[in-house]
Amino acid sequence: MKIENIKPDQIEAKSFEMIGEILGDKKLDSRYEAVIKRCIHTSADFEYADSLYFTDGIIETVQDAIRSGAYIVTDTKMAQAGINKKRIEAYGGKVLCFIADEDVAQEAKARGVTRSLVSMEKAAQLDRPVIFAIGNAPTALISICDLVKAGKLRPAAVIGVPVGFVNVVESKEQIIKLGVPAIVARGRKGGSNIAAAIVNAIQYKIED
Amino acid sequence: MKIENIKPDQIEAKSFEMIGEILGDKKLDSRYEAVIKRCIHTSADFEYADSLYFTDGIIETVQDAIRSGAYIVTDTKMAQAGINKKRIEAYGGKVLCFIADEDVAQEAKARGVTRSLVSMEKAAQLDRPVIFAIGNAPTALISICDLVKAGKLRPAAVIGVPVGFVNVVESKEQIIKLGVPAIVARGRKGGSNIAAAIVNAIQYKIED
Repeated sequence: MKIENIKPDQIEAKSFEMIGEILGDKKLDSRYEAVIKRCIHTSADFEYADSLYFTDGIIETVQDAIRSGAYIVTDTKMAQAGINKKRIEAYGGKVLCFIADEDVAQEAKARGVTRSLVSMEKAAQLDRPVIFAIGNAPTALISICDLVKAGKLRPAAVIGVPVGFVNVVESKEQIIKLGVPAIVARGRKGGSNIAAAIVNAIQYKIED
Repeated sequence: MKIENIKPDQIEAKSFEMIGEILGDKKLDSRYEAVIKRCIHTSADFEYADSLYFTDGIIETVQDAIRSGAYIVTDTKMAQAGINKKRIEAYGGKVLCFIADEDVAQEAKARGVTRSLVSMEKAAQLDRPVIFAIGNAPTALISICDLVKAGKLRPAAVIGVPVGFVNVVESKEQIIKLGVPAIVARGRKGGSNIAAAIVNAIQYKIED
């Protein structure tokens, strides 16, 4: 197999071209095409062409929130690391993750709950609109649901794409049922890389 | 769908139990079972039961390297963020990523190559055994191949699991052909999460 000689600034465009070719006649909703294709780009998994759920107007909702300086809160350091911060910070926002905070760890231990759950409660205290980007922990999504139901949180948007087995499918269906502005990867798949890819796909389409 | 009530410290064990159930009669090589299952755990993608390639003795090679204070070098901040540092640092090692270094960016621009490529050349200068954990950039893997062929690098091990389309499959086959101690996810799939999961699966099995 031969390595193709390609310039660094052409690799991404070529990748998306190859994704388009593999998708073939498969029709994607043009409103969500950039998000779907970036999820495939980051995973090489074409199931994302079918598994992503979007609430009406979600792309504009997330873009407006970023433009007005919303914070992005992730459930893992990996998702935080994967989100491009330049534009978000230029608009006055930040990309935050509380999972490794000492106070979160202590409270989780004392209450016998996950750090992910407590880190969402901490995020609910922020005095700014928050876009949640959850790629790992179902308990983070469940915590968001509970906070919303209790009237303690009104998320600007929830990107709910945890991956795995225990309560993963269930937590994602719960977020869909909740009716908040959301993007969800139905089923078991997702991940911190997918959470970051979705935030990036949306912010890259913001026109200044 | 009902959320299952499960204690935080039991979620991981329950997840691995569910993975075992879904695998059913599928036999995994016991030497690699922990790595394969952790890749499935982090991706919910059962293709990893078949796509991972291991060179003989690779698990012990990586464990010995970590025990003797080897550095882990990743190609992305996401992979760096996903690797558990506690034990690695306790043995005197570090988890490094040079992708965002200013000197790397400048040199890549001047030479018209990727930052990933230059960041591997920088890693080759380290005066310590290096385990490479590459989850994103084929150009990082190709760079490692070129450095080895030129006699400028002898990696302790290469975890070669980039994801995507342009030169991804080809770069992974090249690493296999090179014959260095390696774990490779054949095909298009992989990712920073997979790179981190493999390092973590191996280090969690080190007996003190």
